[in-house]
Amino acid sequence: MTTSSVHQIPNWLEVAARSHPDKLALAFAGQRWTFADLEQSVAAAGELLSTTRAASAGRIGILSANRPGVVFTVHAATRMAVPFVPLNWRQTAGEIAWQLQDAGITVLVVDEERATVAKTACADLPVAIVPIAELERWGLPSERPNDLPQIKLEREATVIYTSGTSGRPKGARITYGNLWFGAIASALHLGNHSNDVWLAAMPLFHVGGLAILSRGVIGAVPVILHERFQPENALAAVEEGATLLSVVPTMLQRMLDARGGSWPSNLRCVLLGGSAAPPRLIEESVRSGIPVAPTYGLTEATSQVTTMLPDQTPRKPASSGVPLPLTQVRIIAQARVALPEEVGEIEVRGPTVFAGYIGDDAPGSSDLNDGWFRTGDVGYLDSDGYLYVVDRRDDLIVSGGENVYPAEIERVLRQHPSVLDAGVIGVPDESWGSRPAAAVVWRGDIDRARVDLRDHCRQHLPGYKIPDQFLFLSELPRSASGKLIRRALRETIAESLW
Amino acid sequence: MTTSSVHQIPNWLEVAARSHPDKLALAFAGQRWTFADLEQSVAAAGELLSTTRAASAGRIGILSANRPGVVFTVHAATRMAVPFVPLNWRQTAGEIAWQLQDAGITVLVVDEERATVAKTACADLPVAIVPIAELERWGLPSERPNDLPQIKLEREATVIYTSGTSGRPKGARITYGNLWFGAIASALHLGNHSNDVWLAAMPLFHVGGLAILSRGVIGAVPVILHERFQPENALAAVEEGATLLSVVPTMLQRMLDARGGSWPSNLRCVLLGGSAAPPRLIEESVRSGIPVAPTYGLTEATSQVTTMLPDQTPRKPASSGVPLPLTQVRIIAQARVALPEEVGEIEVRGPTVFAGYIGDDAPGSSDLNDGWFRTGDVGYLDSDGYLYVVDRRDDLIVSGGENVYPAEIERVLRQHPSVLDAGVIGVPDESWGSRPAAAVVWRGDIDRARVDLRDHCRQHLPGYKIPDQFLFLSELPRSASGKLIRRALRETIAESLW
Repeated sequence: MTTSSVHQIPNWLEVAARSHPDKLALAFAGQRWTFADLEQSVAAAGELLSTTRAASAGRIGILSANRPGVVFTVHAATRMAVPFVPLNWRQTAGEIAWQLQDAGITVLVVDEERATVAKTACADLPVAIVPIAELERWGLPSERPNDLPQIKLEREATVIYTSGTSGRPKGARITYGNLWFGAIASALHLGNHSNDVWLAAMPLFHVGGLAILSRGVIGAVPVILHERFQPENALAAVEEGATLLSVVPTMLQRMLDARGGSWPSNLRCVLLGGSAAPPRLIEESVRSGIPVAPTYGLTEATSQVTTMLPDQTPRKPASSGVPLPLTQVRIIAQARVALPEEVGEIEVRGPTVFAGYIGDDAPGSSDLNDGWFRTGDVGYLDSDGYLYVVDRRDDLIVSGGENVYPAEIERVLRQHPSVLDAGVIGVPDESWGSRPAAAVVWRGDIDRARVDLRDHCRQHLPGYKIPDQFLFLSELPRSASGKLIRRALRETIAESLW
Repeated sequence: MTTSSVHQIPNWLEVAARSHPDKLALAFAGQRWTFADLEQSVAAAGELLSTTRAASAGRIGILSANRPGVVFTVHAATRMAVPFVPLNWRQTAGEIAWQLQDAGITVLVVDEERATVAKTACADLPVAIVPIAELERWGLPSERPNDLPQIKLEREATVIYTSGTSGRPKGARITYGNLWFGAIASALHLGNHSNDVWLAAMPLFHVGGLAILSRGVIGAVPVILHERFQPENALAAVEEGATLLSVVPTMLQRMLDARGGSWPSNLRCVLLGGSAAPPRLIEESVRSGIPVAPTYGLTEATSQVTTMLPDQTPRKPASSGVPLPLTQVRIIAQARVALPEEVGEIEVRGPTVFAGYIGDDAPGSSDLNDGWFRTGDVGYLDSDGYLYVVDRRDDLIVSGGENVYPAEIERVLRQHPSVLDAGVIGVPDESWGSRPAAAVVWRGDIDRARVDLRDHCRQHLPGYKIPDQFLFLSELPRSASGKLIRRALRETIAESLW
């Protein structure tokens, strides 16, 4: 028994319900739940999930747009100590089926709009489908337990699918401790005001959306949940008192376009993550007096790694800020820790670093070195300890805040019988930050190639992953070992497109 | 390597200096230090302490009134990973000498007023005395380390002397993790506002005063330090922007007497601990609109165990509130966990529970059971989980927020050649909450007894421990096994005094 480290803590929703029973916990489309209400809704949802076949034998998947049932499922799974897996609902049935199997999901909570794709995805799998509307029905009040249930911090809380160089998304295993320390670090860094209200308009299957739920219940902060981001609705929520906002650059740009910068002063922090923000956007925000806080985050570090404090942004507008209080960041260049200003690979260590990917023998063995996670991203620290991200993962295309993995698109393209080789890179795009462009070695009728490839992609990829541009080459630049030389490909494509 | 629990974190002062270099960290008597200033002062103080003989071989004692050097020493010791021991300066040289030996103190930081008593206390001991004024001299700026030093949470941070049934105070060993989780839990429970300012007018050798320093630097909250509590000065600090205040009932009463209840609205929480607050005081505070937060705290739980949120105080004025988010509280009655409303012994578990007393073979072995600390205090929980303290430790007298241990006074009384037996209890007192009263079995000239005993006490006890009343009995009520029956003694003394 050690007395200083903490291995389990009282269930955070129960604590919030005990300390703040009458405080607003969740608002969605005109409905409101206090923390006491939320506890009861979660208890009722948990009872239903528990009675579902094999609920405790596998992970619980969620395939739904943002709505209260997602929140209930997340907290009910926590109470049951069963990991939940929020799935990207923009995926095809085939992609979803692969993740259901990869994550060993045995119960899938699904909203009406995704009922058909869920049925297709689950066709050959032992997965029980639970309509989310059933979880949202008000259950009987459950008795508050005499002794609060505990959360064991070492246990896996959730799996979130993210980047992978293999072309398949990888399931990042995030523990309760990762969520908890992430929420604590954010509260220490940004403060935790009694009147705080957090607007969650990002999809809850993103770590940046999901982290709002844990920050909310751990810090007793009300969460305003929007089904999807709409600039006018987001601005209205700020008018009604939201103080904290998580956005990707595209969202912030659309809010600025809709309204300009005259936003209510109750808004005290706009957490800007998801992809490198265009300097022009930071400048416009600062000029308009918007308290923008550029952030460098990772699924594998449970969201925030570094965050600018809004009052520091004008001083260092190109930086992503200092590490959160519990997080260490170092730059590795030439196999040693870099000097200030020296560019290298960004590594992260601390209690928010995840427990490894699904399927890895030793958790994160290839990516973790003495607790340091190799992000694959490139950047430097200045002499004050501020991080500057020079390049997100070489291969990754971040389009409108969504991760798009070239290798995955390349795999689909290569399945087409007329494609001999394929390479995908991101090209800058005013609206989306970046969009995929493909280079293809094609055999056969070149006249039909573009139409054929688009049709083929539509069958196997969601729209946002379909390349905007196709370039046809006689061969792709490859190294002696056969590895695609993306830098060379990028130059070739750039010359052809502009 | 576990990824979810945390065993070490970046040095909290370095983090604050990196994230908030220009924010106020400490104010004292017109002087001000930003977090960057504080880091430099602490680095300079650390260099001096490190060069002092044997600094790393023993604990560092502090014998000083509240002043900046105490803050510097606390943080410098943390940076050096050497435990510090803030000593109660109201003690006699003999009491101090005993604690110097008990805690293995090899360096003692002393202010001018206590130079003589320190010299006496250290006379026969291998202790290096460091005048605190030397630590307060501005040193050369030290380079900020490239890699932040880490704090290992399991390690002992400090020893604070507290109650003991043996009559000797016991040194409670508090870890960095205890301090850290205590600060986190307090920030989660009370919030952590960007404009917060904490007034520290309690002695820093009390856990209630010391905890302000760790909360301040961990939460980046400025601390206004007062040399001693004066109601007018405390009220002036609130006028100047203090939002958080830690007091014992006597202090709050004196502030109310000085000013009434028309206090500035920036004051958002008055943490009221140290001893059971008179109901009249809570009522008067609530009526005056003062955001009072009655608290049940223990040195052994690194200050707060339960705390009312100020807006809940009017609803349950007799309660000490709900447990902090990481803390569990249970009541044991008849060797089982009590039902709601059932009175029993209060037990506490969680990451703020200390590592045991100095000299215990197994840390806290007699007091810890599966992590549960037996407080010796008596109380109950209501059905909402709110704690009501019925009686502080049976034997303990809490006088003006100071712990007074009957057994210690009894030991001194029995040293007098004319005293055959002695027993001490607390009697209610309007000004101090409680004051010690003694019953003595005296042989010899009874006319000189009171004068003799007072002179004797003055030689061996600080003023606040000298009994106000002496009652002379032919014998004391004792059990067959010779144990003093305090309840019977209390009745006898009450009959005689009133």
